Amino acid sequence: MKPRYEMFEIKKSDLAGRIGILHTNHGKVETPAYVPVIHPVKQSIPAKKIKEMGFDLVITNAYITLKQHGNEAAEKGIHKIIDYDGAIMTDSGGYQVLEYGDIDTNYKAMAEFEKKIATDFAIPLDKPTGFGLSKKKAIEYVNHTLKVSKETLETRDNNGQIWIGPIQGSEHSDLVRGSTRELVKYGFHMLALGSPVEFMESYEYRLLAQMIITAKKEMPDSVPLHLFGAGHPLTIPLAVALGCDTFDSASYMLYAKHGRYITEDGTTHLDEMSYFSCPCEICTKFKPKEILLLPREDRTNKLALHNLYSIKAEVDRVKQAIHEGRLWEYVLKKARAHPKLFETIPVFTSNTSFFSQGVPAFKENAIFLFAKEDQFRPEVTRFHSMVRKFRTGKKNLVIVADGPMKPFYLSAEYNKLKKKFAKKIDDTQFCQYNPYLGIIPLELSDIYPAAHYVMSNSQCSQEDFTEFATTLNIFLKQNKFKTIHVANDDFLKHHFKLTKKIKFFNFRATTGRAKKQFKR
Amino acid sequence: MKPRYEMFEIKKSDLAGRIGILHTNHGKVETPAYVPVIHPVKQSIPAKKIKEMGFDLVITNAYITLKQHGNEAAEKGIHKIIDYDGAIMTDSGGYQVLEYGDIDTNYKAMAEFEKKIATDFAIPLDKPTGFGLSKKKAIEYVNHTLKVSKETLETRDNNGQIWIGPIQGSEHSDLVRGSTRELVKYGFHMLALGSPVEFMESYEYRLLAQMIITAKKEMPDSVPLHLFGAGHPLTIPLAVALGCDTFDSASYMLYAKHGRYITEDGTTHLDEMSYFSCPCEICTKFKPKEILLLPREDRTNKLALHNLYSIKAEVDRVKQAIHEGRLWEYVLKKARAHPKLFETIPVFTSNTSFFSQGVPAFKENAIFLFAKEDQFRPEVTRFHSMVRKFRTGKKNLVIVADGPMKPFYLSAEYNKLKKKFAKKIDDTQFCQYNPYLGIIPLELSDIYPAAHYVMSNSQCSQEDFTEFATTLNIFLKQNKFKTIHVANDDFLKHHFKLTKKIKFFNFRATTGRAKKQFKR
Repeated sequence: MKPRYEMFEIKKSDLAGRIGILHTNHGKVETPAYVPVIHPVKQSIPAKKIKEMGFDLVITNAYITLKQHGNEAAEKGIHKIIDYDGAIMTDSGGYQVLEYGDIDTNYKAMAEFEKKIATDFAIPLDKPTGFGLSKKKAIEYVNHTLKVSKETLETRDNNGQIWIGPIQGSEHSDLVRGSTRELVKYGFHMLALGSPVEFMESYEYRLLAQMIITAKKEMPDSVPLHLFGAGHPLTIPLAVALGCDTFDSASYMLYAKHGRYITEDGTTHLDEMSYFSCPCEICTKFKPKEILLLPREDRTNKLALHNLYSIKAEVDRVKQAIHEGRLWEYVLKKARAHPKLFETIPVFTSNTSFFSQGVPAFKENAIFLFAKEDQFRPEVTRFHSMVRKFRTGKKNLVIVADGPMKPFYLSAEYNKLKKKFAKKIDDTQFCQYNPYLGIIPLELSDIYPAAHYVMSNSQCSQEDFTEFATTLNIFLKQNKFKTIHVANDDFLKHHFKLTKKIKFFNFRATTGRAKKQFKR
Repeated sequence: MKPRYEMFEIKKSDLAGRIGILHTNHGKVETPAYVPVIHPVKQSIPAKKIKEMGFDLVITNAYITLKQHGNEAAEKGIHKIIDYDGAIMTDSGGYQVLEYGDIDTNYKAMAEFEKKIATDFAIPLDKPTGFGLSKKKAIEYVNHTLKVSKETLETRDNNGQIWIGPIQGSEHSDLVRGSTRELVKYGFHMLALGSPVEFMESYEYRLLAQMIITAKKEMPDSVPLHLFGAGHPLTIPLAVALGCDTFDSASYMLYAKHGRYITEDGTTHLDEMSYFSCPCEICTKFKPKEILLLPREDRTNKLALHNLYSIKAEVDRVKQAIHEGRLWEYVLKKARAHPKLFETIPVFTSNTSFFSQGVPAFKENAIFLFAKEDQFRPEVTRFHSMVRKFRTGKKNLVIVADGPMKPFYLSAEYNKLKKKFAKKIDDTQFCQYNPYLGIIPLELSDIYPAAHYVMSNSQCSQEDFTEFATTLNIFLKQNKFKTIHVANDDFLKHHFKLTKKIKFFNFRATTGRAKKQFKR
């Protein structure tokens, strides 16, 4: 058995998302990756074409393959059956077995079949819990799935196949937690999170996010996570930011069958469209009305092809955002695409330590600060932690607003302040502040991101900046200042109103034209 | 001279943006339109290719054409010179004349030349004010431009050419206002707003927005507005939402020359890119590193081609947003792309009557309500105005939160309330509320958008909803209720804390799973 680190390499990360490489018997797969569903019998867009488009991993259904192709599949292997030479994942067909009540198919036979067809990623025959199952039934399904998974993993061959442990439990978070722990303990090198389709169909993004975080918190970083049934342009960035590495869906085809065109932020029915805002091979050749008039099958295939391009573009945008260290910005902007997605913002602002782990200590790009949510951005909370540990013996404190020139010690403001407080300069702790980063002591003013941010000059209400208040209190408690000089602005006046013996003074930051260095 | 309505037809509008048709001597041009700059001598991407990509209007420089092609251009016409059979706009070269101090070129000769070369949109030889000019100098330039424009228009031929009146004044809003008024009075059928390049280079989107609004407020709807030098993906939706119909730029080529790749939200230098999230003919063939390694000229042209596709996609997204009535959502989401763009939000929330004009009374789609800004969305403020005029003689008022079923009178909540207040039902005014739409009287509960919204179930601070408070006060003042029954929730408790004699009662809206009908 190959050592784990060879199977999954992490190249770069941001929030809980990461860019990685899965090494398989059929080549490398860069993650995060959308895994298109290929139907083993009636696939109208050739798997080859899908490979050419840049999808290096597809998923197909082992159960349907068994029922339709039987021995032929076992002899030829799944790659010949679906005519695809990249990596293949096979779902075991747990859903179908449950749905059709097929008692002939058992997990041992299915595992044997998955070995024979030489799939790259195999899944034990699980019992999906779905949504709305009673706790008792859910426990029964989870236990069954765990038993099957353990046995299947123990009887695997050392053939380079990657077995995926299916996490069940759905809305019962204790079951999700326990399920994940067990599967990790059994030694699965990859896990998959089951059946959140109901969450996604009802746009319950917040529940989905919480379920993913529950599982992720029990998994080591080195184990990649697959998410079943996620192929909507709003689900993808969310799932990636939460730490899902692969996600399969037939969305490209299902939406196409219903005449739905995938855009950046959702799907639109063809007959509501006047403009294709996509430069793909389909959209540059046809107008919406022209596609509407095509025969049904042709229309569906053309739409499906566009949908694949559109999903790939979304995944690439998210990957580029990780690459640039802008995943927070990407996800928070995306949240404005649908009110139900907007409800996930508190998930991001209240799980800071979870999201912090993946955020590099230093980034090439300045961070953007827009509104109160951004005080909980990992780079920002990390800076707050540093300031909360800051100690000085100086007795005189001076706080002014940040200015256009960074870091503080190179600024015109600092020179002005040095003159103003020349008499006790050696005993003076100079600080800048902004509502997001809080107190910025001179000595920390070049630590990322204190000199690497672009802030919106928007009205913000003082009460919203709770992190500022907390850090300020700790800072004042830990350091015993005798005199405090505070620039006379509304924000500081609000936050110092309860502190006694403050001297307010008028101070104006040097205004400068917006800085070109932060152009994108 | 053709009558005005034939030159510009408005098909659809949202906020101040509109989809229209410009009728020219060389075909129809659908607006809003990005107008690529074509260099009359050294154009490396053929104008023909640009036409094939769907750009039906380009701009070129009449001054450079005169200097480089002289008589040849006058004989052949500008369409042959740049080899383009769509509509052509010619800039008069005011900038170049100022820059090179060319005293040989005068406005009369330039107007003659523009007639001879048979350009479709001609611009008088103006004197651009640029940014940072003293008021005195700016007045001088504005007056010169007005004089030239008037004379040029008076001596035009009745040949189907469209003369564009150049608005000058830059940051001096009184000059912009006066300039616009005069040009409209002279009878120009199209205007252009001059030289905001400096605003855009320093990312002063708020100043740009204010300048555009200043001009637009002086213009009849029937007159289209061109914006000079706007080709950034953040400027385009802003300019369109503010009412600019066409905007020219060489951005596709200028960015390409600097190795910059245009994305949805800005530009990224090629060497910072790992992923192309674009399915255009260039991005599907090459990876970022492969383009980097191409010879300089080839690289620039390939990047420029992608940049054109990217800009076209942005324009099409904005057009589709107008088509779907989602321009407000589009612009507010886009604002999260850059902190300086975020600063334009107050421009939208504080110019409601300006933006309301273009918003249809009824839309096919539900509106999305995310956060406090959305209380100023035109559809919402319009509903507030209606409620502020609402009169009832009933003496008993009941207010409860909105529920999942709309309109109110078809909901389970209404049935419950009818039973609860059965005794004085004929004297009871039933209302729902939400923080955005405010009070929703039963009788108005099916009026758009009272039954056509999807609201984010996010925490919102009661103080932020000032429109709610204003409408509530007016509603209570205009209608003389003797008893007031209010559901016992935090939001209502906050807003009724100053009102006396209120009976709070416990009431729970029927919860329902998220509604599928609002899927996008």
